[in-house]
Amino acid sequence: MNIAFIGLGQMGVPMARNLLRAGHSLCVFDLVTPQVELLVAEGAVAAASAIDAVKHATMVLTMLGAEGVLAAVAPGVPLIDCSTIDPLTAKEVAAAAAARGNPMADAPVSGGTAGAQAATLTFMVGATASLFATIKPVLEHMGRNVIHCGDCGTGQTAKICNNLLLAISMIGVAEAMNLGTSLGIDAKVLSDIINTSSGRCWSSDTYNPVPGIMSNVPAARDYQGGFATRLMLKDLGLATEAARRAGQTVMLGSLAQQLYQLASSQGLAERDFSSIFTLYHQMR
Amino acid sequence: MNIAFIGLGQMGVPMARNLLRAGHSLCVFDLVTPQVELLVAEGAVAAASAIDAVKHATMVLTMLGAEGVLAAVAPGVPLIDCSTIDPLTAKEVAAAAAARGNPMADAPVSGGTAGAQAATLTFMVGATASLFATIKPVLEHMGRNVIHCGDCGTGQTAKICNNLLLAISMIGVAEAMNLGTSLGIDAKVLSDIINTSSGRCWSSDTYNPVPGIMSNVPAARDYQGGFATRLMLKDLGLATEAARRAGQTVMLGSLAQQLYQLASSQGLAERDFSSIFTLYHQMR
Repeated sequence: MNIAFIGLGQMGVPMARNLLRAGHSLCVFDLVTPQVELLVAEGAVAAASAIDAVKHATMVLTMLGAEGVLAAVAPGVPLIDCSTIDPLTAKEVAAAAAARGNPMADAPVSGGTAGAQAATLTFMVGATASLFATIKPVLEHMGRNVIHCGDCGTGQTAKICNNLLLAISMIGVAEAMNLGTSLGIDAKVLSDIINTSSGRCWSSDTYNPVPGIMSNVPAARDYQGGFATRLMLKDLGLATEAARRAGQTVMLGSLAQQLYQLASSQGLAERDFSSIFTLYHQMR
Repeated sequence: MNIAFIGLGQMGVPMARNLLRAGHSLCVFDLVTPQVELLVAEGAVAAASAIDAVKHATMVLTMLGAEGVLAAVAPGVPLIDCSTIDPLTAKEVAAAAAARGNPMADAPVSGGTAGAQAATLTFMVGATASLFATIKPVLEHMGRNVIHCGDCGTGQTAKICNNLLLAISMIGVAEAMNLGTSLGIDAKVLSDIINTSSGRCWSSDTYNPVPGIMSNVPAARDYQGGFATRLMLKDLGLATEAARRAGQTVMLGSLAQQLYQLASSQGLAERDFSSIFTLYHQMR
């Protein structure tokens, strides 16, 4: 494959590196030059612009939205956008691409920078069945789980719905743990009970936000690393905006967005999203 | 043991029956006579009043609050209240009991009527270590998991904190599933993704509220049976009241309470609490 890879951030660099290692030819572009040079040293070709990058590509992969390059891509070449955007916008861009003869997939990822480096990402793919069959082998060089969610837009839908629920669960755990400990129950005892009861959830049993409960989670290292509060806030913005456009209500989701906005403005923007617990704990 | 058992509702009858089967002498009371007669037919002695029931007891077990019988219990006799009440009230009642020489435990249960019948309930116990050691063998005749949560009140705390998180998670699942399907993703595909991702929770992977996803859950039988919306609303009332008295914030919990209040007023009071999904689905 002659792949154009556009958008070389903290996720894009290791993802592109895994494609190079799998033997693909890569033409890369990013406004940040050092990132480009990293990959050129490993065998990629640097393009002068995004438009330039896609000219001779047989597949286009973007990590920052694909709208800008549509006009420059040859007819028939598939486009894969791996960034997280609003599902309805994803559908509109895919329709515009289809009108130019380019099949397009939305394929947002989860798994973070560690997953990008280890090629263990999960790709949630919205695409026709035939496009999915074409792109799956390429995505499998960067991830472990490549899931076909349905037609265009459903990859974004899966991602934002999961993250909507994740944000709500995390705040729920924060409220339950803060209330419980303020009433005198030991935090470890309470989390053990929750984790074997109907309150069980990933935010409690795998990623507990209360320091001292688990090791190897951001709460154990002052909320450094992980999934930043500002990124969760971005995804909640996408979810609530998608809900507005679809005419649906997300009442807890809307309040979760406000709480993550508050957390961001209280200095937690770059901390892991489980640091929302400190909003409650600080109130004590 | 010569046990006084007061409060013979849908939970109390099977719990008392399991104590009888374990060989304990039971003196029972409830205002509803047929329930009393059920147990008398199985070997229990009927008392004329709650006061009468506890007079000669060596242990007192209540399923409707223990305040009314305190004055009639002999000094030294342990009291166990298995009903779900506010943790701070539980502490106050235990302090009043202690002042009369009666050690007292709060031991609310989870597991529903099916768990009460099969003696597979979970007891969340707030008690001193020595009282816990005394009552544990008795509770084990009615339940499978008897957990020592800490001192007085911590049993209630564990129960309401778990149910607070459960209510929030269930509404979160309802919002995520409703938003996702309205945007065009298949409900089963979305729940499969959530259940292997960071949105994973008991409300999604064990008790999914969307009809057609799982069998053997209330959603598969028009939300009949299970844990009634009105009971979840009661527990959310206890949680938010406990938070108010403890001076803590439960923002999602407070909105969850309002949504369960709305669900109750919309005809869902006697349906399972997962029927909150229909509030969202009806809006479409």
